[in-house]
Amino acid sequence: MALRFEVMEKDIAGRVGRLQVSGKTVRTPALFPVVNPHLPLIPPAEIQLMGAEAIITNAYIFATSERFREPALIEGLHRLLGFDGIIMTDSGAFQQSVYGDVEITNRETLTFQKAIGSEILVPLDIATPPQTGRNTAESDLGITIERIREAVDMVGMEHLAAPVQGGRFPDLREEAGKAVARMGLTFCPIGGVVPFMETYRYRDLVEVVLAAKRGLSPSACVHLFGAGHPSMLALAVAMGCDVFDSAAYALFAREGRYLTVTGSRMLDEMTELSCPCEACRGRTVAELREDPNREALLARHNLAVTLLEMARIRETIRDGTLWELVDDRCRSHPRLFDGYRALLAHAEELEVTDRVSKNRFFYRGSESCLRTEVRRYHRLTARVPLNGRVLVSFTGKSLPGFDTVLFFKPPFGPYPPELRETFPIGQSEIPSWDRDMVTSGCAGIRALMEGHLGVLFTVLSLPEWVELVKGELPGAEVRCEPL
Amino acid sequence: MALRFEVMEKDIAGRVGRLQVSGKTVRTPALFPVVNPHLPLIPPAEIQLMGAEAIITNAYIFATSERFREPALIEGLHRLLGFDGIIMTDSGAFQQSVYGDVEITNRETLTFQKAIGSEILVPLDIATPPQTGRNTAESDLGITIERIREAVDMVGMEHLAAPVQGGRFPDLREEAGKAVARMGLTFCPIGGVVPFMETYRYRDLVEVVLAAKRGLSPSACVHLFGAGHPSMLALAVAMGCDVFDSAAYALFAREGRYLTVTGSRMLDEMTELSCPCEACRGRTVAELREDPNREALLARHNLAVTLLEMARIRETIRDGTLWELVDDRCRSHPRLFDGYRALLAHAEELEVTDRVSKNRFFYRGSESCLRTEVRRYHRLTARVPLNGRVLVSFTGKSLPGFDTVLFFKPPFGPYPPELRETFPIGQSEIPSWDRDMVTSGCAGIRALMEGHLGVLFTVLSLPEWVELVKGELPGAEVRCEPL
Repeated sequence: MALRFEVMEKDIAGRVGRLQVSGKTVRTPALFPVVNPHLPLIPPAEIQLMGAEAIITNAYIFATSERFREPALIEGLHRLLGFDGIIMTDSGAFQQSVYGDVEITNRETLTFQKAIGSEILVPLDIATPPQTGRNTAESDLGITIERIREAVDMVGMEHLAAPVQGGRFPDLREEAGKAVARMGLTFCPIGGVVPFMETYRYRDLVEVVLAAKRGLSPSACVHLFGAGHPSMLALAVAMGCDVFDSAAYALFAREGRYLTVTGSRMLDEMTELSCPCEACRGRTVAELREDPNREALLARHNLAVTLLEMARIRETIRDGTLWELVDDRCRSHPRLFDGYRALLAHAEELEVTDRVSKNRFFYRGSESCLRTEVRRYHRLTARVPLNGRVLVSFTGKSLPGFDTVLFFKPPFGPYPPELRETFPIGQSEIPSWDRDMVTSGCAGIRALMEGHLGVLFTVLSLPEWVELVKGELPGAEVRCEPL
Repeated sequence: MALRFEVMEKDIAGRVGRLQVSGKTVRTPALFPVVNPHLPLIPPAEIQLMGAEAIITNAYIFATSERFREPALIEGLHRLLGFDGIIMTDSGAFQQSVYGDVEITNRETLTFQKAIGSEILVPLDIATPPQTGRNTAESDLGITIERIREAVDMVGMEHLAAPVQGGRFPDLREEAGKAVARMGLTFCPIGGVVPFMETYRYRDLVEVVLAAKRGLSPSACVHLFGAGHPSMLALAVAMGCDVFDSAAYALFAREGRYLTVTGSRMLDEMTELSCPCEACRGRTVAELREDPNREALLARHNLAVTLLEMARIRETIRDGTLWELVDDRCRSHPRLFDGYRALLAHAEELEVTDRVSKNRFFYRGSESCLRTEVRRYHRLTARVPLNGRVLVSFTGKSLPGFDTVLFFKPPFGPYPPELRETFPIGQSEIPSWDRDMVTSGCAGIRALMEGHLGVLFTVLSLPEWVELVKGELPGAEVRCEPL
């Protein structure tokens, strides 16, 4: 049975979906916890109980391990690891990118991955790091695509992952996406991105991922290879990533670091725990710090936080409030904030495929003016049929002598009374008007004016916004509500 | 042993402290869960295990209950409820404000509260609702103060709470604060505020609480009566509230509402749980919904979330990152955002007592420009000793012909190289410069210029900021770094 991916619900470019492999199902967005047989901090069966429906492990480790190679070949991964969900294997490409050449070929790793019963196989792609120059990135990409072709010939497409490389070059990433799309592959990990995340280059990460997404088929299941810090998952999902794998829960635990959805902290610098998970509840920081199982307990906490963030993201997509979660998470670190702003800068492109109606729109600050819903409102508002003299009333009051009276809700703009109950006008909640919000609303009026050249527009403003409105809408007559 | 309150650490107007009553200690900020003997959703002993060091119950309910009056008088509250932490009792004033006159006098309730072993006694104050006009609010306040005096005479000051009323009038709130401060009372609940919270009037809540705080002694332990939704606790603590009591965990559970730190949701509208607490872990939404103990489970979840938010707030104060938590929580609802902006509008007043150095300053959007740390920087920067010709360099480069070269970090402003490592310059993390941030930094330069009239200032700007700098600093020479 082939690997299948089905999208159920959408928000921004994020999707709630269902990935099916070998008759087993993973709800996406999903985290595949990394399991290293040499460092069994949490038994895979317990990882499953914690909510993970799939795990990923590294075939290279098994292939080169005196201890695990034979058992893996004889028993198969599922029995050896004690996990009956989906198991994906990486090829050793990551080791190659970190330690240089690995002693395995593309054919060898694929044969081995198949032999040990992996359900999602990864060819030996070349993870081109960001500092690599264009020529090398291009030739690396050529090799990766060649190896994917070789893999298709060898093991077929049913269980194959098709990595998308291209280093820091958006055009190469897009080309790589197109190449695997042409091959018809369904499961596409975006690779070579760990260095961006390690150095907090989230702005560059956004450019690279969106470029790959432009090339990929919208029906592909997109895996962001090596991403797993909970604070960046909402951003990654909003870009259209569906699967994450991460060893962060374990690696951070080894360093005594405690993950939260807004960052991580050194356990040694903490005074109080504020998490009700199994590892934290009933323990003080001192008890957790001095526990002989400290590392495993920390790993459990870290993994629980990460898995639950995935659940929260799925719920947020169902509600249509993903922009709000992204806004929340990305304000936790200024570099993530840069990534968020980079994503907002692509709102025009994202708007085209964003869903039409959402449960709500809560204004969370100036950045909310740049959301896809506002963009779309401005685009569609130009089409509102109008005639005669038009009044846009900030106050809700009308004036005599107008054929059409529109009301005004920032950051959107003008709306006819009959749209009062529809999304986003009826479902949006905004604080007291601020400058950025009213400026954005004026852009909505401007879009309407540009769609109706020759129509005379009058704005009935409130005194505090008269100057702003005049500056934003030089073609409109501005009147002011007498107090 | 008298009621004692000690402040250990501060951030904004928030404090981590220690409230001691009858030899028992509560870490503040603290939540006192409301226990209603008629609705025992979670046994008080388990509330204690969940982390609550104090509870509050209503003496009026005991006084008027056929079932509980005698046992309370005979066994005392602690034995009857099975709770050995601190127990506070309310008087029935809240019932009075909701249902009209209650059949108890100030003397009767105080005698009864004392008899049942309450450790924090509340006189029968008058909870003036926001819609009450000035004259009534003023006479209500007079009665409340008279009753506090009566209470001091009757039961002494050792276990007495002194409610601060005054309706929606900041000057009355301040006067009420001063009155109880003059009486030397340590534990001061700000009352009559529930209607503000029920109608999301957080902006008004901020004005009323800050006014009360201006009147109160800085060494008073301030209780915000009836506040307990986790999304607003950070804001309330930032204003200087130390104790909260809330029945929200139970009332919301009865309505099938699931609390989170950013709001509440109807359990019936949820698909997935994303909380690792005892009630949620291992349960699907459907299982939780259909559980015969659904209400008690929901109450447990709601209470866990609220108690852990208090722990998080305490930790945030220790770290000096309370503004960041307030920013995070208040963006979750546009009305809370209004409250946050109202608090920021008082930054000048809050700055005076805010702590000097903090672990870090993370920029989270335009609102961060208004934080106390930025205000203080602008105030103190005027005092930097300067002479001769001064260059403020945006680029880090110097130019020949200047006696003093200062660098520039928005949203703060100019800094001499020797302050590079000190707070906030050295501990602040900012995203790519934005307009509001640079405008705020220019206000820092302006403050410096105003402190050094006669000194000639030159700004070495980057090309994209030249126009803005010229507009903000008409008195400075602006040069531009050639690209």
